[in-house]
Amino acid sequence: MAELGARRRGRGGGGAARRAERSAVRVEMAKFIERRIPDFEVLDAEAIEVIEANAETVLAEIGVVFAENPAALELWRGAGAEIDGERVRIPRGLARQLCSTAPGRIVQHARNPERTVEIGGRSLVCAPVYGPPFVRDADGGRRYATIEDFRTFVKLGYMSQWLHHSGGTLCEPTDIPVNKRHLDMLLAHMTLSDKPYMGSVTEPGRAQDSVEMSEILFGKGFVARNTVMTSLININSPLTFDATMMGALEIYARAGQACIVSPFIVGGAMAPVSVAGTLTQVLAETMAAVAYSQLVRAGAPVIMGAFVTSIDMNSGAPTFGTPEAALITYGAGQLARRLGLPYRSAGAFCGSKLPDAQAAYESANSLNMGLLAGVNFMLHACGWLEGGLVADFEKFVMDADQLGALHGIARGVDISENGQAMDALREAGPGGHYLGCAHTHANFKDAFWRTQLLDYKPYETWLEEGARDTRALAQARVAKLLADYERPAIDPAIEEALGAYVAKRKGSMSDAFG
Amino acid sequence: MAELGARRRGRGGGGAARRAERSAVRVEMAKFIERRIPDFEVLDAEAIEVIEANAETVLAEIGVVFAENPAALELWRGAGAEIDGERVRIPRGLARQLCSTAPGRIVQHARNPERTVEIGGRSLVCAPVYGPPFVRDADGGRRYATIEDFRTFVKLGYMSQWLHHSGGTLCEPTDIPVNKRHLDMLLAHMTLSDKPYMGSVTEPGRAQDSVEMSEILFGKGFVARNTVMTSLININSPLTFDATMMGALEIYARAGQACIVSPFIVGGAMAPVSVAGTLTQVLAETMAAVAYSQLVRAGAPVIMGAFVTSIDMNSGAPTFGTPEAALITYGAGQLARRLGLPYRSAGAFCGSKLPDAQAAYESANSLNMGLLAGVNFMLHACGWLEGGLVADFEKFVMDADQLGALHGIARGVDISENGQAMDALREAGPGGHYLGCAHTHANFKDAFWRTQLLDYKPYETWLEEGARDTRALAQARVAKLLADYERPAIDPAIEEALGAYVAKRKGSMSDAFG
Repeated sequence: MAELGARRRGRGGGGAARRAERSAVRVEMAKFIERRIPDFEVLDAEAIEVIEANAETVLAEIGVVFAENPAALELWRGAGAEIDGERVRIPRGLARQLCSTAPGRIVQHARNPERTVEIGGRSLVCAPVYGPPFVRDADGGRRYATIEDFRTFVKLGYMSQWLHHSGGTLCEPTDIPVNKRHLDMLLAHMTLSDKPYMGSVTEPGRAQDSVEMSEILFGKGFVARNTVMTSLININSPLTFDATMMGALEIYARAGQACIVSPFIVGGAMAPVSVAGTLTQVLAETMAAVAYSQLVRAGAPVIMGAFVTSIDMNSGAPTFGTPEAALITYGAGQLARRLGLPYRSAGAFCGSKLPDAQAAYESANSLNMGLLAGVNFMLHACGWLEGGLVADFEKFVMDADQLGALHGIARGVDISENGQAMDALREAGPGGHYLGCAHTHANFKDAFWRTQLLDYKPYETWLEEGARDTRALAQARVAKLLADYERPAIDPAIEEALGAYVAKRKGSMSDAFG
Repeated sequence: MAELGARRRGRGGGGAARRAERSAVRVEMAKFIERRIPDFEVLDAEAIEVIEANAETVLAEIGVVFAENPAALELWRGAGAEIDGERVRIPRGLARQLCSTAPGRIVQHARNPERTVEIGGRSLVCAPVYGPPFVRDADGGRRYATIEDFRTFVKLGYMSQWLHHSGGTLCEPTDIPVNKRHLDMLLAHMTLSDKPYMGSVTEPGRAQDSVEMSEILFGKGFVARNTVMTSLININSPLTFDATMMGALEIYARAGQACIVSPFIVGGAMAPVSVAGTLTQVLAETMAAVAYSQLVRAGAPVIMGAFVTSIDMNSGAPTFGTPEAALITYGAGQLARRLGLPYRSAGAFCGSKLPDAQAAYESANSLNMGLLAGVNFMLHACGWLEGGLVADFEKFVMDADQLGALHGIARGVDISENGQAMDALREAGPGGHYLGCAHTHANFKDAFWRTQLLDYKPYETWLEEGARDTRALAQARVAKLLADYERPAIDPAIEEALGAYVAKRKGSMSDAFG
């Protein structure tokens, strides 16, 4: 069920907060999805047994590579793995045993406590698109992303009722040197939104910056005791763990900050063309990564991820919203639950170049499968376009609206006396009408999910209003959300300290691009 | 799993068939979906118990109305119901008991035996949009439908690989008098396609025409012994059964032809605003209708239907692809299975005026839910637009392409040795690549669902080819399918007899419009 908390915009300390409180528009905001429906499970007991046994075989016989990371190899050796060059062969059962110290549920704090999320169990937290070098909107077309685009996405995310998380690299701010981007991105998440956010992973030093900026925002003691970031550690599939990503993971794990360890798989290229084969690899890779995080610090919060798509055998391009991806997403959820780990997968994936019907079919396929697969953290839940090359402004609000529908499904079926509605059935009777029933009057406001975007008007009205398609409606909604946007209040001393940190760190670096 | 049979176009008897065989393009055609995945169930045991008990209460205490149908009242009286005017109160348990003689699985024969479908159990049969008075295409816009539009849709359905059924009133041929339309529609299904089709229900006499034309096509003896039509009998929700629809049902039931008995519900107007209340009403209504069909002829094939949408409480318009509709569709599937009846629900539902992103989100939500809800017969599986007012040519092929993805999900997870792909995992190893693996070579052709429509090309190629959106791609596909269309062969004597029947029947009627 959607847990709705009233957001007071401008919430925070001091006089600014009180002024904001007086003038604030109260926006209903969903905390996260609490699933009251079962998970959809495509693997039967035999399939689970086969895949789990095969994953152990992969780890024990084929092994994994921890590249350019002698310290990791030492940790593995100490744990009982067989080391052969950079190859780590993990005896049967060891990885699963190491995974058992990872928590099953992670509380990620936001600076606004009403935005704090729980990742794991029956929860689903939705975060926006991550990583595109390009942005697109209806007027400006496709172009390289800038830090201003990034800030605009942070604002849209803050204003999106059904989006629980501010995300990470909403788009690559290509106008900022690559070694400084993370500082501006973090500053935007921290100051323009009060939702939880992700840390940088592209260099261990950037992960350290993320921790230190979080310490300024939350206080050093708070960060030492609590999880305030969830960061995305990709695995180099097949079966390879590079030093950069593992270096970031090491910093986050030691700091008690959450990582998503996630194979990035285009099936047929980085994994076998079969569903069971891909699931085997996903399980082997994520068990190795989670186990490693626990070697670094037992109890470190970690999320088992599966980013899986298939290759189009004609063009070599990745495809999205496909049946094979759905089966893998459902199956990987079962495997994650058996490991007792929170699960990250799905998103508003699509290969389309435009926010058109293809984009929506593919995205809806992925979003629905994500909900039913028991995903706990859904990155890319809105704004993703063109295989992740583009963050699209209109699609951001289109997908974000659909997330509301997921909340509705997750509510499940209410069989309270009110839910049973026998009074209404008696009152209407054969041939009657329910619009006038007392039960309808008492319940209609919350009975049905309501879109904030889509068109249900009569044809003639729609025609008079310009016969707009979804993209045009979304363009208007983007403009309205940005016009309504007000920055959440923040302690000026904290904001100043964040700015000073960013300036100091930037001053210590020369510009790097590429 | 998609059971693919090779279609020989032009298959049939005699020299025409042999000539056709020599020249025919062989098109792979899916027979129907055989689900190797579980059903998604949102009702727990307590919810089922509550809803089933409440439905019995509705039938026993509130009752249902069989309007202007004294013979029906007599049948009910004889079965033990309490009759009060036109109100029929059905003692607890009686309706469920009567339902038990309805078959759980229906074989609907097509004139081409390779197109014969099974409705019930683990099967899912997809049929196109039904009923719109308007059509739309990208060039011609929205306009009243004609018999030529109807024939075009029959051809598109015949050419659609993932569509198993030719359907019924694909659009209303408004240029034909209303009392003659069914004759031209049936003739089109029978001669332009060889897939199974639906009969007319708008008057008992038109149902009789449907039976008689089917007797010409299949032979009288064959029709007496086999089901060759599935027809749509709507219930006037709440709880009312009108004489016209029941008259058609009576004819079909006596002829051993299948009916879908289906409430047509806009939640909040024709049913309570709650999911559990609507499910109670759906169950009461369909049990009464199925029970009645069994009173007419015990053993008559009948499908439990649920067409459920919600009202937009702002505009009063129906909405589609919503979470409430999904929950009802999942729940009604459970109730149907407990009755041992085939289940009809879902479709490519949308409220959008255009085949745009809204249409695709809503349709994909509905299609996915239909597959996972255990639907056995999915009417409106392609082409539906604007709340069912419009049959859209481009959306027809867009949705039909997505039906292929449903086939892929339904295949489930193959855990054969080949499916496990351990050889591929060993061959690729850490950091390797799967494209060159022997396993990939052996499997890539059938490993992944392939769209026949959507664009996966590189951005630059897409741009060079005109930066087409999905609708433009679909427009090209419509044109290609129609250009490739060849009429399936038919015995000339049968075709002549069908034509003569239509001419004779039309000659006996004056024109009626309205």
